Amino acid sequence: MTDDSETAVFKVKAQILLGSLIAIGPGKADLLEAIDRTGSIAAAGRALGFSYRRTRDMVDTLNACWRVPIVEGVRGGSRGGGAQLTEVGRVVLKHYRTLDAAIQTAAAPHAEGLLALLGGSA
Amino acid sequence: MTDDSETAVFKVKAQILLGSLIAIGPGKADLLEAIDRTGSIAAAGRALGFSYRRTRDMVDTLNACWRVPIVEGVRGGSRGGGAQLTEVGRVVLKHYRTLDAAIQTAAAPHAEGLLALLGGSA
Repeated sequence: MTDDSETAVFKVKAQILLGSLIAIGPGKADLLEAIDRTGSIAAAGRALGFSYRRTRDMVDTLNACWRVPIVEGVRGGSRGGGAQLTEVGRVVLKHYRTLDAAIQTAAAPHAEGLLALLGGSA
Repeated sequence: MTDDSETAVFKVKAQILLGSLIAIGPGKADLLEAIDRTGSIAAAGRALGFSYRRTRDMVDTLNACWRVPIVEGVRGGSRGGGAQLTEVGRVVLKHYRTLDAAIQTAAAPHAEGLLALLGGSA
């Protein structure tokens, strides 16, 4: 066992909120990527450690927040069906990943000076 | 009354966590600025709409997370006492504001493409 109570974490994140809903943020971007990779909402949720209920709620929020649905069901073969990103879903994910890379790059040079002033011991 | 249930908000934020504590983030940076401006923890909390209890807890967290305390009490005159940022407190705030400006600037060009795809109506 390790004691991580003093572990320093530097986080930079972008979110778009629509009213009280998170239209996109780090968690939903990860979910979109996982759906794209696995072809299944259930498998994507499992891969990220989310409950099925939470995963479905996130997909419902995603589909409610954008002009058109960004995750859609697909008829499968023997598996019975799956899910995939719509064209707009791919564009949203791509824009978000570009944005995220830009802010991480912008933040990096400033992290060190702050982290050097932090307390705690390893 | 306005219905803001569909208001889109684009948020980019940086946080440093030390274990489960937020060492610095948008709220604590605002608090440090308000303490610097008002010379008082209580007045700073009021200016930001935080309860006194919450404000004290935030100051305690700030002082626990960094190598040295970053808010200190000062002996006042007729007012009986106040608070001010230590030298390290000023450096932390300055670094954070520089970092925050950098990520907001980096994010801005990417916001429009995403916001154009959002649903909701005004």
